[in-house]
This record gives sequence, structure tokens and C-alpha cells, in this order.
Amino acid sequence: MAKEIERKFLVRSDGWRSGATAKSVLRQGYIASMDDRSVRVRIIDRKSARLTTKIGRSKMTRDEFEYEIPVSDAEELLDAAIGIVIEKTRYRVPYEGYVWEVDVFAGRHRGLVIAEVEMGSEAERPALPAWLGREVTGDFRYSNQALATEFEHDRHALQHTA
Amino acid sequence: MAKEIERKFLVRSDGWRSGATAKSVLRQGYIASMDDRSVRVRIIDRKSARLTTKIGRSKMTRDEFEYEIPVSDAEELLDAAIGIVIEKTRYRVPYEGYVWEVDVFAGRHRGLVIAEVEMGSEAERPALPAWLGREVTGDFRYSNQALATEFEHDRHALQHTA
Repeated sequence: MAKEIERKFLVRSDGWRSGATAKSVLRQGYIASMDDRSVRVRIIDRKSARLTTKIGRSKMTRDEFEYEIPVSDAEELLDAAIGIVIEKTRYRVPYEGYVWEVDVFAGRHRGLVIAEVEMGSEAERPALPAWLGREVTGDFRYSNQALATEFEHDRHALQHTA
Repeated sequence: MAKEIERKFLVRSDGWRSGATAKSVLRQGYIASMDDRSVRVRIIDRKSARLTTKIGRSKMTRDEFEYEIPVSDAEELLDAAIGIVIEKTRYRVPYEGYVWEVDVFAGRHRGLVIAEVEMGSEAERPALPAWLGREVTGDFRYSNQALATEFEHDRHALQHTA
């Protein structure tokens, strides 16, 4: 089990693009989504897949259990996903000792761009790039879980630009 | 992904014991349990562990996705299980070309004994040993999911002998 400790922000400009060093295309959906936990399947660049269980109520930190699974299983699991399958391109953007992940959503969330940074502890204070917008750490509406499963009623509440 | 096609019965006598060829001790709980799906963690003989997702509404057949995971992860997942952790000893009992699994429950379900047989298709008609009691295939109250998560209200409705 790993701890997932992260902060999340909206993105207010394309300033991150010049610093991006890698990207991957993600397709993901939720097999289960209950109050403090979720079980997610993700296919990465159509080549590999992972089943990830996250548990915890904290805004910044959750327990994460992640396992590699066959892509063919993942495709079948996505067919059984709750809500929609999220499609996004994830860019890696190193900045002052941290690697930011910038998710550019496609499909039904096109226009939404979210940046996350993983930290070693909640006490860390990563430097914040100028292209970040409002912080949405712990705002359930911007969780992938909500974006996948509560899209229908939350669509108009979502702020797609910072 | 595999299909799980099985029939399930109560057990009305100890007649199966003389035919048992192997046994294992199972500890299991549910990480998620929603209408047509469940995510289960199981530790087998304290030595190996599996994470299993089952999806489907059919009484006899469900899709099953099962992955080996580290026992240490499984212990942590069991700590986060919904409801109770089920403890049971599973005996393998070959009978006329099929292998019956007889689950003898311990802990809070002590006294409950359930036999299951896995089939290749719903059309198969395995011979039924004389020690079987009433069939409970598709009876949600006797699912491991219900035994783990709905124990509190279903306890007195459960028939522990056939």
C-alpha cells in the first residue's frame, strides 16, 4: 500500500506546455465508488492497465493499492464502469524539484485542465508554477471519481477555466 | 476475465467429510459492495491473497476478475473492509466429475455450512450428493457479500441447518 498525498489545482494558462517532458493517454473509469473509497481501472497508452483502490476521507491523503492487470481485462471492466469513461492526456511537467501532472481532458470534459502534484508528506510546500489557477485539493467535484460518476448533475457547476 | 457459473446449497449432514481431499482457511472481506458488483479481498492459508471483482445480476453466472496481491496489502485492505471479515474453512470434495467446495464458517457465522459447485455452463447438471440440503443459488442472503455486509439485520433470518 502506498500513501497518495497530493494537491490539485485548476490551470489558467498554457504556460506549462513548454516544460512538459512526457505525455500519456489515459482512459479510466470506476468499477465501484462509495463514500470513502473507489476502485478505478485505467488503461495507459492502450498498452498497460492498472486496477487501483483508494481509501480514505482526508482531503490531501488517501491509501492507494495499485495492481497491474491485463489490458483485455481492463477493457472489459471499463465496459462495466459506473458513469462515464474519462479520457485525458497526462503531461509530466517538472518544476523546482517536483513533477506536476497536467491532465487535459477530452470527451465530455473537454476544456477542463487540472494539475496535480504528489508529495512525500502533507507538510511539504512545493513551489507553485505561475500557470496554476485556483486550488481544488479535496474539492470532490474535481475528483476523477466525481468527474466520472456525477457528471450528469455537476456539469454546469464545474469551472472549466480558472 | 472468467465466468463464474455456480450453484449453491445448504448442507444437511457431515456425509461430505469422508470425501474431502483438501482444505484451506479463508479470511475475506469486501472493499466495495454495490448492487450488481463487489470487490473482495481474500487471504488463503495466511500465505497468499487475491483481489476479486465480480460483476453481474444473473443468479448463476457472474463475470469474475481475479488478481494475486501481496498478503500485506490484503491485510490492510481487510482492515478497511465493509462489514465483517468472514472466516471459513473450505473443503474440496470431488463427486462424480465435479469438485464441490464445502465452506464451514467460523466466527460470527459459526454453524453455517454451504456447498458450491462450479460449472462450465448453466446447462450442466452436476450430480447432487445426498448430503446437500436446500438449494440457495441466487439467494442473496447466502452470498458471501450479504454474509459480510448485511449480517446485522439478516442474522435471524438465516437458516443455519438445512
